[in-house]
Amino acid sequence: MIKTAFKTIGLIIRQDSISHQSEIQTICKSLSRHADLLIHYLDDQIITKEYTQVSLQQMGQQADLAVSVGGDGTILKAARHLVDFGIPLFGINLGRLGFLADVTMAELDKHLDDIFKGDYSVEKRFLLEGAIQMQDSETIHHIALNDIILHSHQSISMIEFEVFSNNQLINKQRADGLIVSTPTGSTAYSLSGGGPIMHPGVDTIALVPICPHTLSNRPIVLPANQQIEIRLSQTDMVGQISFDGATQAIIKYGDSVQVKRYPKEITLLHPANYDYFQILRAKLKWSNQP
Amino acid sequence: MIKTAFKTIGLIIRQDSISHQSEIQTICKSLSRHADLLIHYLDDQIITKEYTQVSLQQMGQQADLAVSVGGDGTILKAARHLVDFGIPLFGINLGRLGFLADVTMAELDKHLDDIFKGDYSVEKRFLLEGAIQMQDSETIHHIALNDIILHSHQSISMIEFEVFSNNQLINKQRADGLIVSTPTGSTAYSLSGGGPIMHPGVDTIALVPICPHTLSNRPIVLPANQQIEIRLSQTDMVGQISFDGATQAIIKYGDSVQVKRYPKEITLLHPANYDYFQILRAKLKWSNQP
Amino acid sequence: MIKTAFKTIGLIIRQDSISHQSEIQTICKSLSRHADLLIHYLDDQIITKEYTQVSLQQMGQQADLAVSVGGDGTILKAARHLVDFGIPLFGINLGRLGFLADVTMAELDKHLDDIFKGDYSVEKRFLLEGAIQMQDSETIHHIALNDIILHSHQSISMIEFEVFSNNQLINKQRADGLIVSTPTGSTAYSLSGGGPIMHPGVDTIALVPICPHTLSNRPIVLPANQQIEIRLSQTDMVGQISFDGATQAIIKYGDSVQVKRYPKEITLLHPANYDYFQILRAKLKWSNQP
Amino acid sequence: MIKTAFKTIGLIIRQDSISHQSEIQTICKSLSRHADLLIHYLDDQIITKEYTQVSLQQMGQQADLAVSVGGDGTILKAARHLVDFGIPLFGINLGRLGFLADVTMAELDKHLDDIFKGDYSVEKRFLLEGAIQMQDSETIHHIALNDIILHSHQSISMIEFEVFSNNQLINKQRADGLIVSTPTGSTAYSLSGGGPIMHPGVDTIALVPICPHTLSNRPIVLPANQQIEIRLSQTDMVGQISFDGATQAIIKYGDSVQVKRYPKEITLLHPANYDYFQILRAKLKWSNQP
Repeated sequence: MIKTAFKTIGLIIRQDSISHQSEIQTICKSLSRHADLLIHYLDDQIITKEYTQVSLQQMGQQADLAVSVGGDGTILKAARHLVDFGIPLFGINLGRLGFLADVTMAELDKHLDDIFKGDYSVEKRFLLEGAIQMQDSETIHHIALNDIILHSHQSISMIEFEVFSNNQLINKQRADGLIVSTPTGSTAYSLSGGGPIMHPGVDTIALVPICPHTLSNRPIVLPANQQIEIRLSQTDMVGQISFDGATQAIIKYGDSVQVKRYPKEITLLHPANYDYFQILRAKLKWSNQP
Repeated sequence: MIKTAFKTIGLIIRQDSISHQSEIQTICKSLSRHADLLIHYLDDQIITKEYTQVSLQQMGQQADLAVSVGGDGTILKAARHLVDFGIPLFGINLGRLGFLADVTMAELDKHLDDIFKGDYSVEKRFLLEGAIQMQDSETIHHIALNDIILHSHQSISMIEFEVFSNNQLINKQRADGLIVSTPTGSTAYSLSGGGPIMHPGVDTIALVPICPHTLSNRPIVLPANQQIEIRLSQTDMVGQISFDGATQAIIKYGDSVQVKRYPKEITLLHPANYDYFQILRAKLKWSNQP
Repeated sequence: MIKTAFKTIGLIIRQDSISHQSEIQTICKSLSRHADLLIHYLDDQIITKEYTQVSLQQMGQQADLAVSVGGDGTILKAARHLVDFGIPLFGINLGRLGFLADVTMAELDKHLDDIFKGDYSVEKRFLLEGAIQMQDSETIHHIALNDIILHSHQSISMIEFEVFSNNQLINKQRADGLIVSTPTGSTAYSLSGGGPIMHPGVDTIALVPICPHTLSNRPIVLPANQQIEIRLSQTDMVGQISFDGATQAIIKYGDSVQVKRYPKEITLLHPANYDYFQILRAKLKWSNQP
Repeated sequence: MIKTAFKTIGLIIRQDSISHQSEIQTICKSLSRHADLLIHYLDDQIITKEYTQVSLQQMGQQADLAVSVGGDGTILKAARHLVDFGIPLFGINLGRLGFLADVTMAELDKHLDDIFKGDYSVEKRFLLEGAIQMQDSETIHHIALNDIILHSHQSISMIEFEVFSNNQLINKQRADGLIVSTPTGSTAYSLSGGGPIMHPGVDTIALVPICPHTLSNRPIVLPANQQIEIRLSQTDMVGQISFDGATQAIIKYGDSVQVKRYPKEITLLHPANYDYFQILRAKLKWSNQP
């Protein structure tokens, strides 16, 4: 299904790329030995004009493979924009090893050689789709690879809300908010809220309360095909809805948020020796001995 | 697949049945109006000799439907013994509402009428299979519907162990023990260890450490088809392995425990109005407001 | 030290008092049988003009006893305004039983009789004092009975900060924020952040991280006489500082927050049969059995 | 109060000392340059006969300073045996840095020079005293520096118990057990149970449930002068009581355990540059960044 001969590569370059100018040029040079390059800068800083600049949509239509250059934030953004086009994606990390972007500069050429020889590991990750139904305006749609989050609009103010699964009440909560997390998001904000780690291979979402105002709370893991609905349950409360950390809407009593699995998946490529548990241990100091 | 006409019913009666003599007689009378009865007492107290007494194996071979009379412990035992025979199971609860045994005495006749009319809800639950490979003796096999647990052999003594998934190291831990829990077990001992609630519809297991001797621990949710292996990592440590709370083996350094999904599933019948989230809220006071 | 004959009573009336008009009139009538009344409304809604209206400062100077009418929020506000005057305080609760305001309408007359006979329980609660040192403006001072909280200025955005005790580094954290809680505050927002319950009799503060971005975090309980200092550790981060939930300042890199025990304490009066643990169990469903 | 001229030093040598023979001889040599030595081996392995061997009681009576050689377990034992004699104690660590034993071999001579010049830091730590009142036999008394623990007598079996403070009910719990921890013990088993870190300077104890069978549990921090009482609340349950990890009694329904602060404190000496928070960060990877 995935072409092992990638003829056109789309490069997505992180914001503030100027501070990583030389690495980005190295990456372009290395990649251009293997394929034609298309390039998309996430801000206005143009590092090199040697390659065709395209929109993310053009990239999705023309490239056989996308390469995100930055950290996990960059690859999240690339995934959301490219998921509909079905092209695989991998991430070159300019900083510390990421959960998603796992090709480091030090191993760049070795990993590129492997990938272009077809020697890599393939992993599907699903996204979430949120529909925010406003009483007094149109419905807003966005997608997320990590999480869709309801948070009180003010930093430390409680909200009260009801959560449903396939129209069945799950529970009513008073908390600062609620995280709906994919397995991919389980090592991101969900972890800060006390959520479980979920292996990328599970077909589940987690509902993780943020600062619940009760002792008797606990995250729940649900089948990813259940449709979640969230509604504020008090008239004077205001919430905000974020997708992968970016706030997209302010909601009031009477509005509702539907979250469901997005029908398309993003295909991540990893180095052939990719080891999910090793990344967990390295990044999270998971189960580090005192 | 499931017969809606249940002609022969097997009754599994909890231990210490003598203290529930009259309820059990009521149950037998109610059930015998619908089908022939076979009966199995989990201890030596025989409440009534009116019906044929059988072994659990005979019940599995002859009954079209099994009914556990007791609490969650009774239905766990019934499930382990009957899973191979493919007959469905439901539980009548003699005490407080259970997570699994959800037909109460108060609603007995109504629910039986419904069930024999074919008006019920069907749910598959998977079990775990553990193989304890001893260096100096044969391999021990058991199954569990809730959990397989490694615990230090002494109450509050730490053990050190390594956990693998499909032969890949997950992590090395120092803790009092480790719970490998099914979704069914996620509201049992796993909950006490801080594990997430897992909906019966998810195809996952959770690894939940018991009193980990480090700050940096966290439960992980894995695909149910991953094979887990656990090994003690220090020569002087002794652990015990329990299946649904019953200790079945003492292990030493050099022994290993393999846990995998059992190939067969048990089919639970529930009243037609079965609501998993409602049971969670009622039993766990989940998200109870202060 | 505390006068058992309270000749002048100051009443502090909660906001939105209009919705509790008749209870407030009942309270005034009951209290006026025992002593002269001074009254302070926390908003502009004047329920009765029968009694002298005073500022909170005048109340502090003239009253022998203060009575907060409302919930825990009202008594928190009264405590902050009256702590300097050394008069005791108790709370009449118009809604559900509070942690602090523990005289209910149902038992009003009985408890008032007891209190004016000298039959009550006395409890000291300490407050925290925060000094926010701004690089580019003056230092801001506020006090709090529950907690002083640093939170990222945006709802779900991480901040990085260093925490010191008596100028010694405690740790450097990445989190949504940090709660510095008194024992009184330990059943408020601190509880939502995972902090321990602290009995009112302990002379300690707790530092409780809010959504820490690491597995290896844990609240710490410190002597109340240690001076805590918090500083943002990255140039682009913005935090907000709240006192008992009300935001009082926005801080930037280079600013700092000093928190120390306020030199004066507030004296709470409780009904003679006051039972702290009973309130915990009732309000928190603490250790409620499934 | 503490003599800065220590003329006689008592050495307490850890079990299995044979594997640390040369370090122990180095330590003896270094110490004997400063003072006369008395020695006590915790097992039968005698490393050197050059110094007078004494019982721990004789050491308490004759020494001006006690030095524990081993790890935290050795210093815990030394503290329990020497607390009544009022002599200060410090710990030389043969392994990794301990929470209590904080002089390492690498810095031995420097630290000894400092200590004998009077250049050290002094810290008081309180102990707990437990009285186990058996219905059918005499009362058993023991002391602990870390914790007194009730645990079900079987590894993963639940017990139900009531906890009282000064004869007032705190709560009734179903759990695997309960930890009563000093500040010293808060970084030991209490941490594994989810308890807060408590600074050595606080005058508190923590009650930390072990695997509570309810969602609505939370550790509580109490004044150290409150007397705690624990009683099993079901007739068929069996518990065990441990002091600093060593089981000292099996209790049944009808027995009770009283825990209170021991009237004497142990004085720990630390290197002059002792930094409690630094040890927390180093040992616990506390707030380690991902």
